[in-house]
Amino acid sequence: MADLYFEDFKVGDRFVSDGVTVSEGMILDFAMRYDPQPFHLDAEAAKASHFGGLIASGFQTVALGFRMFIQTGVFRACGMGSPGIDELRWPHPVRPGDTIRSELEILEIRPSRSKPDRGMLITKMTVRNQAGEEVMTFKGMQLTRRRPA
Amino acid sequence: MADLYFEDFKVGDRFVSDGVTVSEGMILDFAMRYDPQPFHLDAEAAKASHFGGLIASGFQTVALGFRMFIQTGVFRACGMGSPGIDELRWPHPVRPGDTIRSELEILEIRPSRSKPDRGMLITKMTVRNQAGEEVMTFKGMQLTRRRPA
Repeated sequence: MADLYFEDFKVGDRFVSDGVTVSEGMILDFAMRYDPQPFHLDAEAAKASHFGGLIASGFQTVALGFRMFIQTGVFRACGMGSPGIDELRWPHPVRPGDTIRSELEILEIRPSRSKPDRGMLITKMTVRNQAGEEVMTFKGMQLTRRRPA
Repeated sequence: MADLYFEDFKVGDRFVSDGVTVSEGMILDFAMRYDPQPFHLDAEAAKASHFGGLIASGFQTVALGFRMFIQTGVFRACGMGSPGIDELRWPHPVRPGDTIRSELEILEIRPSRSKPDRGMLITKMTVRNQAGEEVMTFKGMQLTRRRPA
């Protein structure tokens, strides 16, 4: 993929990542480090819970979805980080063996008034499982570099 | 800490976690798995970037802050997961050697109309560094179990 810069994006552009299969081991490992709640960490407790079995931490779904997106290379040359995200939702759980992939859509393009070298992209990230069900959505703000002169 | 349930929370309650020191190794390890952007993964590239040095992935700050909060035990008995969070912001970067801790404040208490065993807490989570600077804030929705009969 050729390097993309702020001026290369258009509203409505979509980028889809490769998939990643989320194993039970990955779920347990993430939960032990970052979200040690029983329905993420203990398969037996999870079975007895309202989830009916182990589910991935929502923060793992965010992190994996974002990582798979970064791997597309879309932000490789132009990514300058993010001041935040809005409306993060987990409409459906991720379970062991699910394969997820992420899609980024460009919602808005805002040139910076004060800094001529960059702008802000407002994006929507959607992570779906192998059945096409949405397992995560958010609206992101992405600081994006313009093409160097 | 005694087990807490939905009816034990009051608007304005605050809970503060222990701290965790974020090493360069932790930042690099998280970035390699989940957010391989140069300013999180490559100390030399980060030095040359607008951040002036390596910073932790914002998703790592969220995950670590949440984990330290879970460790308080506040949600141990009553936590039923979360449908989502809003207004996630990273006002200040986390750098190697920073020590961060999280604080949860109860903003709203919403009993469920349809499910008598639970309710929703609207919370604000704030993660601060050793200088007291806010490095992350979000508004969370927390499904919370009532005390069993």
